[in-house]
Amino acid sequence: MNKLLDTFSDIKVSTNPEDLICYSFDASGIEASPSAIVWPNNTEDVVKIMKYTHDNSIPVVPRGAGTGTTAGAVPLKGAIILSFEKMKKILDIDPENLNVLCEPGVINGKLQRELEWKGLFYPPDPASMNFCTIGGNVAENAGGPRAIKYGVTRDYVMEIEAVLPNGELIKTGVKTAKGVVGYDLARLFVGSEGTLAVFTKIRLKILPLPEEVITLLAIFQNLESAGDAVSRIISSKIIPRTLEFMDREAILAVENFKPVGLPEDAEAILLIEMDGHPAAIKKEAEKTLEICEHLGADIKMAEDEYARNNLWASRRAVSPALYHIKPAKISEDIVVPRNRITEMLKRLRKLSEESRIKIVNFGHAGDGNIHVNIMVDKNIKDEYEKGLMLVKEVFSHTLSLGGTISGEHGIGLTKAPYIEMELSKTESNIMRAIKKVFDPKNILNPGKIFPDNCTGQQKP
Amino acid sequence: MNKLLDTFSDIKVSTNPEDLICYSFDASGIEASPSAIVWPNNTEDVVKIMKYTHDNSIPVVPRGAGTGTTAGAVPLKGAIILSFEKMKKILDIDPENLNVLCEPGVINGKLQRELEWKGLFYPPDPASMNFCTIGGNVAENAGGPRAIKYGVTRDYVMEIEAVLPNGELIKTGVKTAKGVVGYDLARLFVGSEGTLAVFTKIRLKILPLPEEVITLLAIFQNLESAGDAVSRIISSKIIPRTLEFMDREAILAVENFKPVGLPEDAEAILLIEMDGHPAAIKKEAEKTLEICEHLGADIKMAEDEYARNNLWASRRAVSPALYHIKPAKISEDIVVPRNRITEMLKRLRKLSEESRIKIVNFGHAGDGNIHVNIMVDKNIKDEYEKGLMLVKEVFSHTLSLGGTISGEHGIGLTKAPYIEMELSKTESNIMRAIKKVFDPKNILNPGKIFPDNCTGQQKP
Repeated sequence: MNKLLDTFSDIKVSTNPEDLICYSFDASGIEASPSAIVWPNNTEDVVKIMKYTHDNSIPVVPRGAGTGTTAGAVPLKGAIILSFEKMKKILDIDPENLNVLCEPGVINGKLQRELEWKGLFYPPDPASMNFCTIGGNVAENAGGPRAIKYGVTRDYVMEIEAVLPNGELIKTGVKTAKGVVGYDLARLFVGSEGTLAVFTKIRLKILPLPEEVITLLAIFQNLESAGDAVSRIISSKIIPRTLEFMDREAILAVENFKPVGLPEDAEAILLIEMDGHPAAIKKEAEKTLEICEHLGADIKMAEDEYARNNLWASRRAVSPALYHIKPAKISEDIVVPRNRITEMLKRLRKLSEESRIKIVNFGHAGDGNIHVNIMVDKNIKDEYEKGLMLVKEVFSHTLSLGGTISGEHGIGLTKAPYIEMELSKTESNIMRAIKKVFDPKNILNPGKIFPDNCTGQQKP
Repeated sequence: MNKLLDTFSDIKVSTNPEDLICYSFDASGIEASPSAIVWPNNTEDVVKIMKYTHDNSIPVVPRGAGTGTTAGAVPLKGAIILSFEKMKKILDIDPENLNVLCEPGVINGKLQRELEWKGLFYPPDPASMNFCTIGGNVAENAGGPRAIKYGVTRDYVMEIEAVLPNGELIKTGVKTAKGVVGYDLARLFVGSEGTLAVFTKIRLKILPLPEEVITLLAIFQNLESAGDAVSRIISSKIIPRTLEFMDREAILAVENFKPVGLPEDAEAILLIEMDGHPAAIKKEAEKTLEICEHLGADIKMAEDEYARNNLWASRRAVSPALYHIKPAKISEDIVVPRNRITEMLKRLRKLSEESRIKIVNFGHAGDGNIHVNIMVDKNIKDEYEKGLMLVKEVFSHTLSLGGTISGEHGIGLTKAPYIEMELSKTESNIMRAIKKVFDPKNILNPGKIFPDNCTGQQKP
C-alpha cells in the first residue's frame, strides 16, 4: 500500500496499525482488517481513488460512521476503507424548493439540528442519528421511529452524485419534485449497501417542521392489548409520528439498568407521538387515549420538551440496558404486517421458552418493525450457535406471517446466509446480474448482500 | 398468429382488423399495428403467454388503457398487445395495514372511489384518472395535481408480482411498511414503461382520507406575481395538496371554448387546495390568501363540493379547450425547480414570440411541473417540424434551469430522441445493460425509452 500513499500526495492515507484496527469493525462487532484507510476531500479525490483501485483491482469499502449492525462497512478481502469523515459539508439548504444538498459524511443529527433551526425538517431518524452519516443512511435505506408517518430514507432521496467502481462519475435522479427519465438509478442506489457505487453528493427532500408534538406513554398489562391498540389506532385513521413498543423483558432490562419508574407488572408499553397543527393532534391524542384506556392501559401524556424527554427515557435506555446484560447479543430487525405483531410476539415468546434463551423485543410497532434481541454471547461458541439456530426460526416465522427479514439494518454480511429464505433464486440472480453491470470486477464492497464468499455471523 | 389463437384456447386472442386498429395507438396519436391482441384473465395466463412469446421471439407490449402521451403502449415491430382489461379486480383492501392489492387493469378513479367510501385515500391522481389503469400508472410512475403534497406513484408501490420476459414469475418488494432485502427491484420497475417486466399484481400503500378540503382560486395580473406566490407559499411552510397553474393563453383558450368567467386581462391563475384538519387548513388558507392578495391577486374561496367544482371548472377545461384548437398539438411535461417557474415561463413566452408558434402552459406549479403545449398540427409537415425544433429548445432551457424533460409522462417513443440531452452516456449505458439483464432478447416493449430503432415523434 506504500504505492497508494505515494500516488495521492494530496489525500490522507494511512496504514498505521492503530488506524487499521479502528477501521476493522463496525457496530456489528465483526472484524476484518483493511489494508489501508483513505480519506478523500472531495468528489475529484473519490474519482482518482476509484480509478486507481479499479486499475489495480483493489477492493474498496465505503464507510460512513460504522454504525451499521450487519457488517456492511467491514472490509473483506483486504479492502481499503474509503472514509467520508472529511466530506461532511452541508452544501446547500434550499427552503424554496424544500431540499438540501449534502456531502455523504454529514451526520444525520447535525443535519436535523441545522434544519430545525430554520423551521425545516428531515424526518428519517435512525437510533444512531447522532453518529451515523447521510451517506450510510442512503446506502442502508435507514428508517427510524418516525418512519410510520414519514417513510424511510428512500422517500427523501432526490439526486445522487456517485462514482462507479471504474471511477466514472454519474449524477442520477433530479433536483425537482418529479422526474421519469429512464430507469430509477437513484432509488436503485438507495439500500444498495455500498455495493453498486460510491456516493459523493446527495440531495434530500425536506419538509416544513411540524408545529407541535404531543407524546403519550401507554402501559399495558398484557401483550395482546398493546398489539390491538396499534391496529386500532391506525384503523381509526390516525397516523402517529412514532408508535414505539417495548415488551416485558425490555421493560425489566431498563428498570434493572436505569430505573425510570415503570410498573414491574407491565407486559408492554407503547410510546406514541403525534405532530402537526395543535388542534389536529389534540384530537388525535384524545382518540388514542380513549383506545388505549379502553384496552386497559395506564397513560401518561407530555406536551412539552421536558415531560417528553421523561417519557422517552425508557425507550432510549433499552439499547444500552441490553448491551449491559449481553454485550455480544444477536440483534435482528424483522418486520411483519402491523396487525400480525401480537401473533409474532407470541411466537417469539414461545421460541424463547422452548430454547431457554432470553429474547427481548422492542421497536417500531407502527411499522410492524420489531428489533428482536437474542440474548446470547457471541463469544461463547455453544451459546452463539444456539442463537444462530434461533435466528433462522425467527426469520421463518416472520416470513410465514408475510413479513421481511430486514426492515432497516440491511443484509450486509450477517444476514447474507438467510437472504434466500426471502428472495427467490430468480430475484437473487437478477440482483447479482445488476451488481455485475455496475461492478464487473466485484471490487466494491465485495462479499456483502449475496451469500457467496461470506460466512455470515461468523468472523470472516 | 393463428398458432397463437390455437395455443391459448382459454385466453381471448384477436387478430380482427377492427381490434388491430383500436389497439394500434394511444393518447400520443402515434400508430403502429399490433399483430394480435391477447387478454389474459390472470397471472397464470400471463406466464403462459410470456413463455410462448419468449420461445417464439415475439415482441410483446403490455397495455393498460392507452392513455399515455409518449406512445409507451404503441406496438412496434409487429408486437402483440397484452391488454389488462380483464384483470381489473381490487383483490384486497386492508385498512389495518393501510394497503390495497390490485390487478393491473384496475382503473385509478374506481380505486379512488372504492377507498374514499371506506374513508381511505390513494393520492396519485393523473388527469386521466377516470380511464387510466394502476398497471399503467406504475409503469409510467404517474403523478397528478396532488403530487406536491403526496408524491407520485413510486411513493405508494409496496409490492409487485411480475412476469419477466422469459415467463418467470417474481414477487418483489414487501407487504410491510419497511424492507431492505437486496436491491430495490420494485422501485426499479416503477417508471420502467413496460420494458423490464409485466405486472400482474400490485400492492399500494394507502392513507386515511383527509378530513376536509379548502380550495382557493387566485387570479393574477402578471406572471411574476403568480410565480412569486408559488415560492412564497412553500417558503411559508405551507404544503398545499394542489398548486395548479394556467397561463394567459390557457385562460383565453378556456374562455373561448367554454367560458367560466375568468377576467380577460388575467395573466395567470393559481388553483390552490389544502386538506387536513379543519383548524389546520383554515390557518393555511388564511396565510395563502394574505400572500396572494399582497401580490395583487383577486381571490375566490370554496369550502364545499359545489363551489369547489366551480373553481376547478377552468382547470379541467384546459385540455379539451386546447384539443379543440389543435387536435394534433405537441404536449410536453417539463419540470423545473419551483422557484425557477417564472424564469421558465418567460423563456417560453420569448420562444413563442420568436418562433411565432403559440405555446400554452398549464400544470402543477407546486412541483415545477409545466405542461408545455406547442400549438402546431402534427399532420402539417412544415408546422410540425418547426414544432419539433421548438421542443428541443424547450428541453434545453429546462435543463439549463436544473430541470428534467419529463415529470410524469415518461420517455416512451416521443421523447426517446431527446433522452441523451438529460442522461450522460454512462447513465444510459447502465440503463441499457439493466434492460439486457431482464430482457436479453429485447422482446418486451422494444424500441421504447432508448433512442435505438425509434423515430421519435414521427410515425414509426
